[in-house]
Amino acid sequence: MSVFIPREFVFAGIHCGIKRDSTKRDLGLVVSLRPATAVGVYTQNRIYAAPVAWDRAHTPSERVRAVVANSGNANACTGEQGYRDAAEMARLTGQLVGTTPDEVLVLSTGIIGEFLPMDRISEGIRLAASQLSPDPQAFLAVAEALLTTDKYRKIASVELPVEGKVVRLAGMAKGAGMISPRMATMLALILTDATVDPETADHLLRQAVDQSFNCISVDGHMSTNDTVLFLANGSSGLKIGADLSRELFAEKLTELCQTLARAIVSDGEGATHLITIDVSGCRTREEALQVARTVANSPLVKTAIAGADPNWGRIVSAVGYSGVPFDPEKLTLHVNGFLLYQHGRPLPFDPEAVSQSIRQSFEVFVHIGLEEGSASARFWTCDLTAEYVRINADYHT
Amino acid sequence: MSVFIPREFVFAGIHCGIKRDSTKRDLGLVVSLRPATAVGVYTQNRIYAAPVAWDRAHTPSERVRAVVANSGNANACTGEQGYRDAAEMARLTGQLVGTTPDEVLVLSTGIIGEFLPMDRISEGIRLAASQLSPDPQAFLAVAEALLTTDKYRKIASVELPVEGKVVRLAGMAKGAGMISPRMATMLALILTDATVDPETADHLLRQAVDQSFNCISVDGHMSTNDTVLFLANGSSGLKIGADLSRELFAEKLTELCQTLARAIVSDGEGATHLITIDVSGCRTREEALQVARTVANSPLVKTAIAGADPNWGRIVSAVGYSGVPFDPEKLTLHVNGFLLYQHGRPLPFDPEAVSQSIRQSFEVFVHIGLEEGSASARFWTCDLTAEYVRINADYHT
Repeated sequence: MSVFIPREFVFAGIHCGIKRDSTKRDLGLVVSLRPATAVGVYTQNRIYAAPVAWDRAHTPSERVRAVVANSGNANACTGEQGYRDAAEMARLTGQLVGTTPDEVLVLSTGIIGEFLPMDRISEGIRLAASQLSPDPQAFLAVAEALLTTDKYRKIASVELPVEGKVVRLAGMAKGAGMISPRMATMLALILTDATVDPETADHLLRQAVDQSFNCISVDGHMSTNDTVLFLANGSSGLKIGADLSRELFAEKLTELCQTLARAIVSDGEGATHLITIDVSGCRTREEALQVARTVANSPLVKTAIAGADPNWGRIVSAVGYSGVPFDPEKLTLHVNGFLLYQHGRPLPFDPEAVSQSIRQSFEVFVHIGLEEGSASARFWTCDLTAEYVRINADYHT
Repeated sequence: MSVFIPREFVFAGIHCGIKRDSTKRDLGLVVSLRPATAVGVYTQNRIYAAPVAWDRAHTPSERVRAVVANSGNANACTGEQGYRDAAEMARLTGQLVGTTPDEVLVLSTGIIGEFLPMDRISEGIRLAASQLSPDPQAFLAVAEALLTTDKYRKIASVELPVEGKVVRLAGMAKGAGMISPRMATMLALILTDATVDPETADHLLRQAVDQSFNCISVDGHMSTNDTVLFLANGSSGLKIGADLSRELFAEKLTELCQTLARAIVSDGEGATHLITIDVSGCRTREEALQVARTVANSPLVKTAIAGADPNWGRIVSAVGYSGVPFDPEKLTLHVNGFLLYQHGRPLPFDPEAVSQSIRQSFEVFVHIGLEEGSASARFWTCDLTAEYVRINADYHT
């Protein structure tokens, strides 16, 4: 797979000793060689980590020069000391790349409630700053440095030809909600060499996140560190909305975010199925999302899929308690294209055929149709297996 | 354990063949020898079962004479045929006990989406009607006839002495939310020989349910059949609010409902811990409940307890995403009496001591303190174990 790296960004991902395993990267640095527009979308959890507080205070911006990221420690629930540590990460990074702390954003993920090992992190930032490179391998090294219990790194990139020139868009992500022992955080970092003003960037990012990272759930547990950053440094010379269609860019950005979001759910702890839930026929997109999220978060639905059980009663009853008003006589349900429930009535079907279709594929498709309006939503989740419980219960502080 | 059976109620619980296992009771009948005040509280699921529709249409009432209950089939998602079947259960019962269908309430629990085997049920009702008895054994037989995958029957009773007379209050319940393969329903039936008008009965029942059955969760999945019925036939000759303190009766009714509600959670599928969550210092009871429910429904909190892990970060972050506004700097957390987090800061503690306290006891106590007001709430849930997943996934339609 080719990785299209936006121009005038350089990267380094190294091991500095936050994680015990010395083969695992735990510190990443991304530097833009020119000031970049930067916007962020952050966790809505009232308990949020120090780096979230730092980044919130420093975005939107038109002059971000670097993002410093660490895994192995979330710097969450760490009070004033935590905020001072996040600021120190920004200060040191700024000093090394020749900019002020205000122009550096910070990402952290890992254990909650422990202070960062600042000596190792400081050494790590120095080491990373000495290794910065525009090479795809360096980009991948940063993507690895974000990971905690993820089984694989999650990246996506695209190149958009525009009248003989190209705009590049690349992203990386980690996590799967707040899925793992004392590990928090879904993080994503998206880079482009297009030119864009902060207001447009903010709008584009929120639009894309609403259709991707905000439409996934592993366990319904919102983390303290969730952050999506979007940096645009303009080095392609192409401006969104002028040289380049805003709609096209929005579409590509949304697709890229969806690719990363699906990768997060696919890597959900213990997951054996990626479940796509489509809800249509709602009065509003919010209602469609609410139905989808309720179904996605039902442990009974998730265990049924894990067991390849076409147990439509669990799905239908979850729709019923979603809080969205609808006429039960107009509810229709498909699983993997099989029509199981139509206009409020169960239909005869071959359970073994449906079960087999679930068992044979990593992907499962659920379609819920109401007849209340024309709004729809798509949501992704994974199944719930005994392995999830084992991973999350068989851990001792 | 003595069971105090309210006077002038008679009972029968039998096997009629809805369940395959002929040693398991699946049909129960409760008859009041005099017209009883009857009120009900029902599922808020928009997809609700036929017996729920029937009972809703026939309560509150001052002249209910019987409750007919079956397990093994929930009569849910069964359309008009389902409603006709529920009505037929009421008609036949009424005929046998000498009353009209309007004076009979119906409870069903079990498989969703299948029609009731009305021939067996009709025979069963006839058999039960021929065996009615005021004996405690007959009361227990009805409690057994309600069960689906429950491991044990759930009953509670109390006797209130009032100036040389006594009022009796007895209840039975089944289920643990919607916990089991294609099985739905939490049901409870509460009987008293006190005299009470429907309006007071309704108020008393709602008040008790709000502090018991509405404060439990096994998996957060609301069933299509949840029903709590309260029948008062006045045979003690003591009237609530006149001969008998309304406050005292309310307290006893609430305690009885809490006993049954805790029994449901304790019997949650795969449960190895009963978790009591107290939330205090909230602006309103609703906010306290919302915090408690969010923590109770977090799979990460539930798996941590299963693993005896004093993982306070999971609890604190669940409070943070509950949607209730609060000052993170004023959040305090105790687990089993150990203070783990105070005023927004983690405290040093001995993880092994806390872990051992969780491991050694079936009951776990979580206390979350905010400083936003003086309202509080208590909520009960159970832990999430690999066994839960096994039970719910290793089932094929």
